[in-house]
Amino acid sequence: MKGSSFFSWASRALHSHPAFTKVFVVFTVSTGSLLTYSESKSDHGTENDESSKTEAKKKRVVVLGTGWAGTSFLKGLDISSFDVQVVSPRNYFAFTPLLPSVTCGTVEARSIVEPIRKIMKKKHGEIQFWEAECVKIDAANKKVFCRSNHDTDLVGNDEFFLEYDYLVISLGAQVNTFNTSGVMEHCHFLKEIEDAQKIRRSIVDCFEKASLPGLSNEEMRTNLHFVIVGGGPTGVEFAAELHDFITEDLIRLYPMVKDLVKITLIQSGDHILNTFDERISSFAEKKFQRDGIEVQTGCRVVSVSDREIKMKLKSKGEISSIPYGMVVWSTGIGARPVIKDLMEQIGQTNRRALATDEWLRVLGCDNVYAIGDCATINQRKVMEDISLIFEVADKDNSGTLTVKEFQDVIEDILIRYPQVDLYLKSKHLRNVADLLKDSQGNDREEVDIEEFKSLLSHVDSKMKSLPATAQVAAQQGAYLARCFNHMEDCKTKPEGPLRFRESGHHQFRPFQYKHFGQFAPLGGEQTAAELPGDWVSMGQSTQWLWYSVYASKQVSWRTRFLVMSDWTRRFLFGRDSSRI
Amino acid sequence: MKGSSFFSWASRALHSHPAFTKVFVVFTVSTGSLLTYSESKSDHGTENDESSKTEAKKKRVVVLGTGWAGTSFLKGLDISSFDVQVVSPRNYFAFTPLLPSVTCGTVEARSIVEPIRKIMKKKHGEIQFWEAECVKIDAANKKVFCRSNHDTDLVGNDEFFLEYDYLVISLGAQVNTFNTSGVMEHCHFLKEIEDAQKIRRSIVDCFEKASLPGLSNEEMRTNLHFVIVGGGPTGVEFAAELHDFITEDLIRLYPMVKDLVKITLIQSGDHILNTFDERISSFAEKKFQRDGIEVQTGCRVVSVSDREIKMKLKSKGEISSIPYGMVVWSTGIGARPVIKDLMEQIGQTNRRALATDEWLRVLGCDNVYAIGDCATINQRKVMEDISLIFEVADKDNSGTLTVKEFQDVIEDILIRYPQVDLYLKSKHLRNVADLLKDSQGNDREEVDIEEFKSLLSHVDSKMKSLPATAQVAAQQGAYLARCFNHMEDCKTKPEGPLRFRESGHHQFRPFQYKHFGQFAPLGGEQTAAELPGDWVSMGQSTQWLWYSVYASKQVSWRTRFLVMSDWTRRFLFGRDSSRI
Repeated sequence: MKGSSFFSWASRALHSHPAFTKVFVVFTVSTGSLLTYSESKSDHGTENDESSKTEAKKKRVVVLGTGWAGTSFLKGLDISSFDVQVVSPRNYFAFTPLLPSVTCGTVEARSIVEPIRKIMKKKHGEIQFWEAECVKIDAANKKVFCRSNHDTDLVGNDEFFLEYDYLVISLGAQVNTFNTSGVMEHCHFLKEIEDAQKIRRSIVDCFEKASLPGLSNEEMRTNLHFVIVGGGPTGVEFAAELHDFITEDLIRLYPMVKDLVKITLIQSGDHILNTFDERISSFAEKKFQRDGIEVQTGCRVVSVSDREIKMKLKSKGEISSIPYGMVVWSTGIGARPVIKDLMEQIGQTNRRALATDEWLRVLGCDNVYAIGDCATINQRKVMEDISLIFEVADKDNSGTLTVKEFQDVIEDILIRYPQVDLYLKSKHLRNVADLLKDSQGNDREEVDIEEFKSLLSHVDSKMKSLPATAQVAAQQGAYLARCFNHMEDCKTKPEGPLRFRESGHHQFRPFQYKHFGQFAPLGGEQTAAELPGDWVSMGQSTQWLWYSVYASKQVSWRTRFLVMSDWTRRFLFGRDSSRI
Repeated sequence: MKGSSFFSWASRALHSHPAFTKVFVVFTVSTGSLLTYSESKSDHGTENDESSKTEAKKKRVVVLGTGWAGTSFLKGLDISSFDVQVVSPRNYFAFTPLLPSVTCGTVEARSIVEPIRKIMKKKHGEIQFWEAECVKIDAANKKVFCRSNHDTDLVGNDEFFLEYDYLVISLGAQVNTFNTSGVMEHCHFLKEIEDAQKIRRSIVDCFEKASLPGLSNEEMRTNLHFVIVGGGPTGVEFAAELHDFITEDLIRLYPMVKDLVKITLIQSGDHILNTFDERISSFAEKKFQRDGIEVQTGCRVVSVSDREIKMKLKSKGEISSIPYGMVVWSTGIGARPVIKDLMEQIGQTNRRALATDEWLRVLGCDNVYAIGDCATINQRKVMEDISLIFEVADKDNSGTLTVKEFQDVIEDILIRYPQVDLYLKSKHLRNVADLLKDSQGNDREEVDIEEFKSLLSHVDSKMKSLPATAQVAAQQGAYLARCFNHMEDCKTKPEGPLRFRESGHHQFRPFQYKHFGQFAPLGGEQTAAELPGDWVSMGQSTQWLWYSVYASKQVSWRTRFLVMSDWTRRFLFGRDSSRI
């Protein structure tokens, strides 16, 4: 998950001070059945019995994963209303946007992780964490099966299952090799902390191996050829970090191989950073050119062997091979096996991720939610509901829609179908009623169903799926937590828009993503950024903005202290190249 | 190698500013023969040719290992006089006395390592470093065979050999399991950086596994039973660190297992820290008792299985088994395979370490030196040379030794046989001539050979071998560097003592170890220390002395900054328990 981005939830959630009531609920699974006992410490002793009874009725929420989405959900959740259990093979949350910095030791791995138990502790008890991997989700029977990932010398069952009333899937994604042969075996990835640590060791290996006696210049060049596949934000940031690491630190210690090092970035599209503004993309390409980083655009990798990477130039169809020392594969994400298995169970086959509705509920199961990289929202099309919308809007059943009638429902339409808003913006229409204007731009009193359909016919073309970023995941987690917190209230007082297909209102407003912008660090204290309001900023001042935003967004004061101390250390002493 | 100790060489060597002449010598081994070419950059262009010629004649020094001994040697060596090549599987120097702190995250691994190339860079060029393991030493042909330890995806030969004129072996030692079954498979060790990192992960694993659903109390207790074998400084310091980690950090995050954790320290001797002053040993035992750390003295481990550790109570011969979650084996050191192989070649079998003479030259080969944990000094006994000493001292060949004659050689005797000095101290004799007093304490004019023998007969009982500590290793490295630097001068102007077995003087004074004291951190901000002058200090003020000494002894400003920043971080935020 990549997110050179900035959001406001983290600091808000961080500084909240929950009440002092501490309740510990311990779940014990043995011989297949779930036994529950609770130990409750309350400041109000007399409430003890009562609160125990309330707890017995609490709905069980199981959260899978402790990445951006899961952690954000947990932070936002009012845990006094639920029995919460969290399952993750990693007992920490990692600030993944700084992973590229970890690969080169600009920031230490330890500085961007925070134990999930510590994050949960700020909520004063009540959440159970199991360090295990979810291996199967049985949505029909509301169970998840888990396997602990500890070595076998320790005693106890390695497998257990949990029953849930609500399941929140926030398992993230795994790398997608697009079935390119050799990628799994020979490439590095950049998704987990361990990946970044391996890359760091591997970079030093390449330099040490190139420095050994007996190598020809050609062999040294091969070992010192670093290839990055994927010109997205992660790949570009890694290339930039690597270039800095080499020019600022490594060549001082390995002066004899100075002129033999090469970095190549392979991008299948025509430009790197193609999800960014064109100006940023071109700024990055020029910067890389000056730095001597070779950017090969329009190239698709066809296979990777132990020594060579084979690629096809899309325009000419030519296939060429280049020898390499290290390859980092930083393109594409795919579904994890456990997600694929669930998708098969619920008839969602051949998808990259779990489909949810606009309320993040997994389509085809009950009480299962999916957030973050493992999910995509299936946005309902306006055209699918166009007749129903017309019917609901046409209050007097006149067969035509007046401006007034349209204005009465437009708010609901905008909330229910966010593509309408995007369409308006793309047409530079300020007032929604302007939609009803005729082709000459004159106001119309009313429109009939056919005219209505034709007016909205292009709206759905503005639908777009959300990027797989930390920013999206965190917002989804926070949104879902809010829904959970208001679940009871909103049953009686729904706060969502009109239901066009049925009567009444939706219980909640659908999830709506708010893009706060995106950073693209380019090395040498240069960063590009897309800021809110389509503002583009590039250069050293943006790098300082990046430092301050990333420091402020840290999950704890500890990691904030560490990250800032790492940056200081890098300024003073450079990056360490000890092979540990 | 353990060395809670303080020495002065590090900072001295650090702040020296070598000249600006840079000379790069690149060795290339191909098809089995060693080709050498040199590329020389000099501030004095005209000297180029001359200096190249001088270089061609430079003696080749190969240094094996980059631990305390090797690094200290490299720092002290005047590299303008030698072609220096360094071989080590680790491209960094590690400040091993802080390893126990790394196991619990009090200090990060990265904070106690410094790339050897960076240390060497301060000497301005000329040293070659090969990241490889020495697999065979061929002392007869003056060659060492090396194997690179990189993954096989990188190109180039994995094996090569180097020829030397002088070989400095500073390979350290490996753990000694005393052939106890199961130790290699199931125990953790505490010798390398990787060991400390593994222990840290393993501690968290024990807590996470104990917290999983479905475990009985008994199973939880087993997983949370930490056993340390060996009551020496390393074992004790690790036990103390672990206790602090658990009580100060872990039980806050794992409150449900609070009462199930146990630490057991197994010591074969009657007391822990038995190389220290008795007061320290007893202080430590009392502190551990208060902390709830169980100390089992007089116990020998007989085997370790995947779940249990079996031990024998020496006094009763009883064998008992205890289940464990994690065992750290921190007792005994043995020779590495490559050292064992060399020992066989030169007829030094059945030894723990390479035997050297008092000048650190390996007995039985030419121009091979061994320093640090891989070596022990075979101190020459006075009684072996007693007749020769008498003969040399008896200048007038009168058959008797006068006080004057004895006084003329006593300095040389004290230098050549340091046990004499230790003997004098043990007898509280201030004046060496007092040795010649008769049993009633009356001065004698002269002694004959038999009286002389009898007077010195107990001197050799005071011989003792040096401990395997960082302090000894560092002093040996510095001593040997000085010998190398003065090799030419001292050929003509020997600075050593009289040769009693031959004529003339020894080229150098023998190595003499100077003990600067030793620290034993005991946790909870309590440290015990043996300071120079047999001064014993214990408590919190000693902990602060420990902080300042360890900070000042760091190998670079970078590690000093990092270690101090780690301590601050620990004070502010505690230790991190993320399982990375």
